[in-house]
Amino acid sequence: MTAPNRYDVTEWPGGDPHDDIGAVINSIVADIKHRQRSKDEDDGGRPGAVIIIPPGDYRLRTQAVIDVSYLRIEGAGHGFTSSSIRYNVPQSQWSELHELWPGGSRILVDLPPADHGDEASAAAFLVARQGDPRISSVEFSGFCIDGLHFEPDGVSENPENSYRNGRTGIYVEDPNDSFRISQMGMVYLEHAVTIRKADALSIHDNFIAECGSCIELLDWGQASKVTDNLIGAGPYGHSIYAENHGGLLIATNNVFPRGESSIRLSGVTRSLVSANRLHSFYPGVVILTDDSAENLVEGNHLLRDQEPWAPFLEVSNGRGDSYGIIHVEGSHNTIASNHVSICVDSTTLATADEGIVGVRLASGRGNYVSTTHVVARDVARNSGESAFEAQVSALLSSADLGALDVVTVQVDAASTANTVMDSGTEEEVAIDRTANAFRPTPRLGAL
Amino acid sequence: MTAPNRYDVTEWPGGDPHDDIGAVINSIVADIKHRQRSKDEDDGGRPGAVIIIPPGDYRLRTQAVIDVSYLRIEGAGHGFTSSSIRYNVPQSQWSELHELWPGGSRILVDLPPADHGDEASAAAFLVARQGDPRISSVEFSGFCIDGLHFEPDGVSENPENSYRNGRTGIYVEDPNDSFRISQMGMVYLEHAVTIRKADALSIHDNFIAECGSCIELLDWGQASKVTDNLIGAGPYGHSIYAENHGGLLIATNNVFPRGESSIRLSGVTRSLVSANRLHSFYPGVVILTDDSAENLVEGNHLLRDQEPWAPFLEVSNGRGDSYGIIHVEGSHNTIASNHVSICVDSTTLATADEGIVGVRLASGRGNYVSTTHVVARDVARNSGESAFEAQVSALLSSADLGALDVVTVQVDAASTANTVMDSGTEEEVAIDRTANAFRPTPRLGAL
Amino acid sequence: MTAPNRYDVTEWPGGDPHDDIGAVINSIVADIKHRQRSKDEDDGGRPGAVIIIPPGDYRLRTQAVIDVSYLRIEGAGHGFTSSSIRYNVPQSQWSELHELWPGGSRILVDLPPADHGDEASAAAFLVARQGDPRISSVEFSGFCIDGLHFEPDGVSENPENSYRNGRTGIYVEDPNDSFRISQMGMVYLEHAVTIRKADALSIHDNFIAECGSCIELLDWGQASKVTDNLIGAGPYGHSIYAENHGGLLIATNNVFPRGESSIRLSGVTRSLVSANRLHSFYPGVVILTDDSAENLVEGNHLLRDQEPWAPFLEVSNGRGDSYGIIHVEGSHNTIASNHVSICVDSTTLATADEGIVGVRLASGRGNYVSTTHVVARDVARNSGESAFEAQVSALLSSADLGALDVVTVQVDAASTANTVMDSGTEEEVAIDRTANAFRPTPRLGAL
Repeated sequence: MTAPNRYDVTEWPGGDPHDDIGAVINSIVADIKHRQRSKDEDDGGRPGAVIIIPPGDYRLRTQAVIDVSYLRIEGAGHGFTSSSIRYNVPQSQWSELHELWPGGSRILVDLPPADHGDEASAAAFLVARQGDPRISSVEFSGFCIDGLHFEPDGVSENPENSYRNGRTGIYVEDPNDSFRISQMGMVYLEHAVTIRKADALSIHDNFIAECGSCIELLDWGQASKVTDNLIGAGPYGHSIYAENHGGLLIATNNVFPRGESSIRLSGVTRSLVSANRLHSFYPGVVILTDDSAENLVEGNHLLRDQEPWAPFLEVSNGRGDSYGIIHVEGSHNTIASNHVSICVDSTTLATADEGIVGVRLASGRGNYVSTTHVVARDVARNSGESAFEAQVSALLSSADLGALDVVTVQVDAASTANTVMDSGTEEEVAIDRTANAFRPTPRLGAL
Repeated sequence: MTAPNRYDVTEWPGGDPHDDIGAVINSIVADIKHRQRSKDEDDGGRPGAVIIIPPGDYRLRTQAVIDVSYLRIEGAGHGFTSSSIRYNVPQSQWSELHELWPGGSRILVDLPPADHGDEASAAAFLVARQGDPRISSVEFSGFCIDGLHFEPDGVSENPENSYRNGRTGIYVEDPNDSFRISQMGMVYLEHAVTIRKADALSIHDNFIAECGSCIELLDWGQASKVTDNLIGAGPYGHSIYAENHGGLLIATNNVFPRGESSIRLSGVTRSLVSANRLHSFYPGVVILTDDSAENLVEGNHLLRDQEPWAPFLEVSNGRGDSYGIIHVEGSHNTIASNHVSICVDSTTLATADEGIVGVRLASGRGNYVSTTHVVARDVARNSGESAFEAQVSALLSSADLGALDVVTVQVDAASTANTVMDSGTEEEVAIDRTANAFRPTPRLGAL
Repeated sequence: MTAPNRYDVTEWPGGDPHDDIGAVINSIVADIKHRQRSKDEDDGGRPGAVIIIPPGDYRLRTQAVIDVSYLRIEGAGHGFTSSSIRYNVPQSQWSELHELWPGGSRILVDLPPADHGDEASAAAFLVARQGDPRISSVEFSGFCIDGLHFEPDGVSENPENSYRNGRTGIYVEDPNDSFRISQMGMVYLEHAVTIRKADALSIHDNFIAECGSCIELLDWGQASKVTDNLIGAGPYGHSIYAENHGGLLIATNNVFPRGESSIRLSGVTRSLVSANRLHSFYPGVVILTDDSAENLVEGNHLLRDQEPWAPFLEVSNGRGDSYGIIHVEGSHNTIASNHVSICVDSTTLATADEGIVGVRLASGRGNYVSTTHVVARDVARNSGESAFEAQVSALLSSADLGALDVVTVQVDAASTANTVMDSGTEEEVAIDRTANAFRPTPRLGAL
């Protein structure tokens, strides 16, 4: 072979990739380490390798463990299709379906489920290497990781709606640098991508949906980006979650339901959330907590909608609408130029008496809220029809029962020295003007 | 073959791809369907395939019809070059040109032209499949679709400037999910990409220019994204057009002339237009019509310039400058933090007496316009020189005859209950203050 | 070979790519020109080619010269790792390191250094072709260009910290159209990407760091984009620099230190800088000079931090903090909805007596500054600890000595007729209110 660092799983003699692609990848990684023994660049160095996964179904019965830098795993198709829709079609109709499963370069995760807190053990791909330097430039590109089924949780009538199966797609355990995840499809995993201790990570241009949680950046990290993805978690998990990150860029993502939140930042500082389209069925679409500070949340479109689909009509994230569509527990953040749309049936709101809140500053100080446009409409409860056309129709023009009174910005007593401007009239903003700075949006017809 | 789902058009025995790549692709699709007969994943399933197009010229005499999910068609070069410039160079000089045609993995569309309204029949690629599930995860990546020539239209002196030839690059007819179009080059097609009924579509990082219309999202759709593209339509068509879409994200595109508009949304709701650079030679750069509602148009740079190139000097989109650079017929939209530059020769404006308008709210109610900076300059009429250097020079520093009086925001009587702030002084904004809320930009030197 | 326009450097008979990939690429380009002699498309045309570089170490002893359109050079791994960290680890500890060098499809630039002003001569890749049409659609994708070592500069204690070696990664000399640079890794080059006279260029989704300068767009250009990159220059160079560009889009980049600036625009007009996260250790993070006009700088997060790492503690870009985090010498620009964080030890500031400035309008007229939130904190001087964890820790929560008085916006006498709104209170903004328009941010507790 003239290019020894290029592997094709279908050509590698170390196993049958259709039966267990995990074992095949581990065999390839062992071969890379065996061949790239010298660190000396004049001796070939340690350039890593590319592992190619042609389109096809590949079962993974053994966890793939990656502990070499510069490994790129590359498929030729993200292969997403909606498993959620299929699993809510009666099996009697399955024979009429064109196809049943996701496709492309598809990995079927067939590992025993992990216990909660031990997610690493049931990850399809585990990246783990301690010592120096941090493992660098591992890349996942262009294939599909399919968790196959969700499991009964004692609550969901249909176990396939539980968003629980103890399976993770990609789990990075140790400090890492310059990783790339792009063009992937991920579906029906309890956790799609979990990355600890990331530096200069890029999660770009993926399709990660119908997973319990989609992107979780844990422990701490810096200078990373989550951009231009299509994302939608299950009702109990996170679409995008980060903790203790500095300098994180979350931009130009289209995040659709469900997700207990669209973007949740805990202890995150000096980061940017910009130009995202965020759609949720619950309050708390963007959440900053645990002293998240000096972040800019700017130019996002947020829609808090109501659930249109029968199997999830009774599901909630447990928060009332007074929680805020944007909820801030932190200081010196900037919340500017966002549009917030709220479409709910006021007769069914759990917390109608507390009011519906657009932006809520719950604690902290020195936040700056400007140019927020909150539009709230009281709409008829959705019928629960499942058809795609009905969903689009609902999104486009929910039967409008009229405008809804909302608190566009609420500043709690525990949050002080904030500046709120151009985000609601005097009647629409709940703020202690002795403890904060406030300029109302001009009133209609005020000359 | 160890990877049966990987096809190379130059290796497939079913025809000569250089003579008719459409027939070859159809033969491959037939083979995929023949081989992937079982829907059972333990029997190989229906993972789809990748079709590889190496760099080269491939004539397409037969329409390629795609009715299988998870098909990725992948080239190794988007191959754009300007056909418009070449066709306006005298043929006597062609012998001095380094090359004449686009390149890369290039498909030469050689189909009979379609009648208007029957675009599907003359599409190079037609994606069509009814029934459930919706066809999913078809991907087009990294190749060039070249419509070759435009046809006489009875108006254009040079038929190659007509932007008419009845040819479409990619036409998706039926409801679809999770499609991807990326890294493509498309040139000299009357319609480049036409997609009906899209869900979670990604059109990302393409070069689509010198086409009658570039991106048209028709019928309805949701949760899609058009991001990070270089785009420029002909003077009679759309650069980016969408109708009845909800949750559409249009971000970080660089849209250059001509295009009768840069972005036009009809009946689009709860969508985001952010961080785009938009350059046009006519008024109406961003247009929201047909009750487009609750959208956020934020952080865009808009330039309404004047045509610098001789062949198109007399072309117009038929609108006067009072139409507005941003034109809104709809409700509850947010227009914020946009910069609008206007460079025109005031002596040649058709509608000079009506005035030049930055943002026009023509009908609807409840829109919110904030932080709009309109800069207008009266410039000498361009000489019509065609050289690239002259174009850049004009773009950089049109001979400045001085500032131009404009109406920065005009609110028509048919649009009410809007809020307009920080988008012009009292003299610059035309608004009925009894029917709307208004706060002018502070005046210079007002203490 | 059925696909003659697809080359693999490891299979091409014209040389040993591991010894000199430059000679091999030149041999391939010669073959392309030899084979594609006819411009006639019915004779095969000039579609260009793809050159594939599998993962591996490839020394480049001969400059690769590209003078054909539609050439794509494609690797299978960007291969970045931090060379800066390694070179500041004592060599005695190198034996404990997992790997020493960058990887992926890695090109080791082994050319004699260029003199200043003659960078083209020591570029690994030189793109040069005069005449018409402009050279088009050259693409660089997915490989690593490694400049290997920096050289003694008489100042840096460790020569590997000098950021000087006279080496350039990619140098494009002549007018060009529709180029693409994506998924590249570039490290330890004095100049990573230098492009003159660009039209519709895309620099997207790259990792360009630890280079003297990263992206330099010279001479003039139009309608290009620099999007979604991870970028960080050395302390003496530019992260993103452009001169005389019109219609440039710089968006969704994550730019980290050092860089004498993050984004510097000279004579740039009608361009957009949006949704970037920008981190610097010096004042002057975004700089507009030389009459840059009508640009929109919007929705960016800027952090002027202090150097945390021992080898660079004494390095400065020579500017005092009164220079401004955003510095404008130009007219009719819009600076809106940006967040500026400043973290410095006030006892060590060179120009403490002049004050710290957020946005400085130094010259020009008619600029519009709105909705700027400046947060400044006085922090203890960093210990110089190098560990990644310490850096993240500093980024997350620098020991806070309290708020710092800053001038949020300073308008110099040489800049007039500007409008400054909502960017600081009367006490925080330094402006001549007779020569400019001003509206202060409301004061805390002002009823």
